Amino acid sequence: MLLRQRKPANAVREKIDEAIAEKLDMETLCSSGKSFHIADFGCSTGPNTFIAMQNILESVERKYKSQCPTSQIPEFQAFFNDQASNDFNTLFTTLPLDRQYLVARVPGSFHGRLFPDSSLHFAYSSTALHWLSKVPEELLDKNSASFNKGRIYYSNTLDKVVDAYSSQFAKDMEIFLDARAKELVAGGMLVMTMPGQPNGIPCCQTGMGMMIDYLESCFLDMVNEVSTPPK
Amino acid sequence: MLLRQRKPANAVREKIDEAIAEKLDMETLCSSGKSFHIADFGCSTGPNTFIAMQNILESVERKYKSQCPTSQIPEFQAFFNDQASNDFNTLFTTLPLDRQYLVARVPGSFHGRLFPDSSLHFAYSSTALHWLSKVPEELLDKNSASFNKGRIYYSNTLDKVVDAYSSQFAKDMEIFLDARAKELVAGGMLVMTMPGQPNGIPCCQTGMGMMIDYLESCFLDMVNEVSTPPK
Repeated sequence: MLLRQRKPANAVREKIDEAIAEKLDMETLCSSGKSFHIADFGCSTGPNTFIAMQNILESVERKYKSQCPTSQIPEFQAFFNDQASNDFNTLFTTLPLDRQYLVARVPGSFHGRLFPDSSLHFAYSSTALHWLSKVPEELLDKNSASFNKGRIYYSNTLDKVVDAYSSQFAKDMEIFLDARAKELVAGGMLVMTMPGQPNGIPCCQTGMGMMIDYLESCFLDMVNEVSTPPK
Repeated sequence: MLLRQRKPANAVREKIDEAIAEKLDMETLCSSGKSFHIADFGCSTGPNTFIAMQNILESVERKYKSQCPTSQIPEFQAFFNDQASNDFNTLFTTLPLDRQYLVARVPGSFHGRLFPDSSLHFAYSSTALHWLSKVPEELLDKNSASFNKGRIYYSNTLDKVVDAYSSQFAKDMEIFLDARAKELVAGGMLVMTMPGQPNGIPCCQTGMGMMIDYLESCFLDMVNEVSTPPK
């Protein structure tokens, strides 16, 4: 999974670099001279999160040097966020020794507020926003037309199931964007990367779809094993 | 250990409350309306750290209400600091559900910088500053007049050993205070509580001294067990 994530992380690095160079508003920041706060929403246990943090820091630093040549480079403070149940102990003990930023970890769901108003300059989330806040209830309800019959995803199933997932994703994204809008300073930036699939390709033919289908069949085998009495 | 710490925590609560009421400079804070940042240096794995955080928050809130009656109460952000090897997973999963503050954890030694310049409004450290950054080297050096002969503390030993610990403590405190001075905003506050012993009472007669003497004898038994070949 780490290697799966590193390839897209490298691929988007250039795009993030361009976006920072073109769009990050340095005017207020140059004059305030305060510290620069970067947050990674859904950081998991690294090490990719540290590579991404370092890349963003270097891009911002380049922009500072070109746009605010007379100002001192600000101190960088990096906030790593994930669920409180994430293994932060592992993350904490693998911090790069040569990092040029101060570190803080923020536990909690990114489907809600995590930072004070106007306190972040750069927020990003890499390969994390596909995690929903919950399973849509109708998928578990035997009396619903969207009942998913014990399956764990929308691959090879009813359109109504796809709609239920899609509707939950829309609600979750609205909550995510609303929270980040309050937390970002004026002129700050939010970058999100997430897996997608080309139009017209069914989910069961994508890498993610195939992986989840296998995972589902393993789960079902395990469930059958405990629910069938031993011979 | 938790109960040992809770009693002094309750005893100092009133003193901290008084200090905030009398000395915390609200003038700048009332006008800025920004979030209020509290840091606990050496938080361990709680739950006492949450009780202390809640008490401080309530004291600050009372002061806000009385001194800045027309301002909105700021958002509180609590930073829990301890060594990167601290069990933050346990700390994260025992966060009070009804807390009125945003949470971040900051891994790293408090004998050094952990936060950006002028970014904390209230810093405190409870029963943590007695931990030194390292064992003074001369205590481990057989050729030194301060050699501590494998002992782990300054109870029942040479005055020179006490001096070595004392000198390390002075160096560590200077580094701690220097770092916090840079991290606190002007008008912010630092509160430190730590165990002490009355003048004239030898260390071996204090609770801490006796506990460490027992601990030392257990360690020595264990060392002897592995260094003596089994019969």
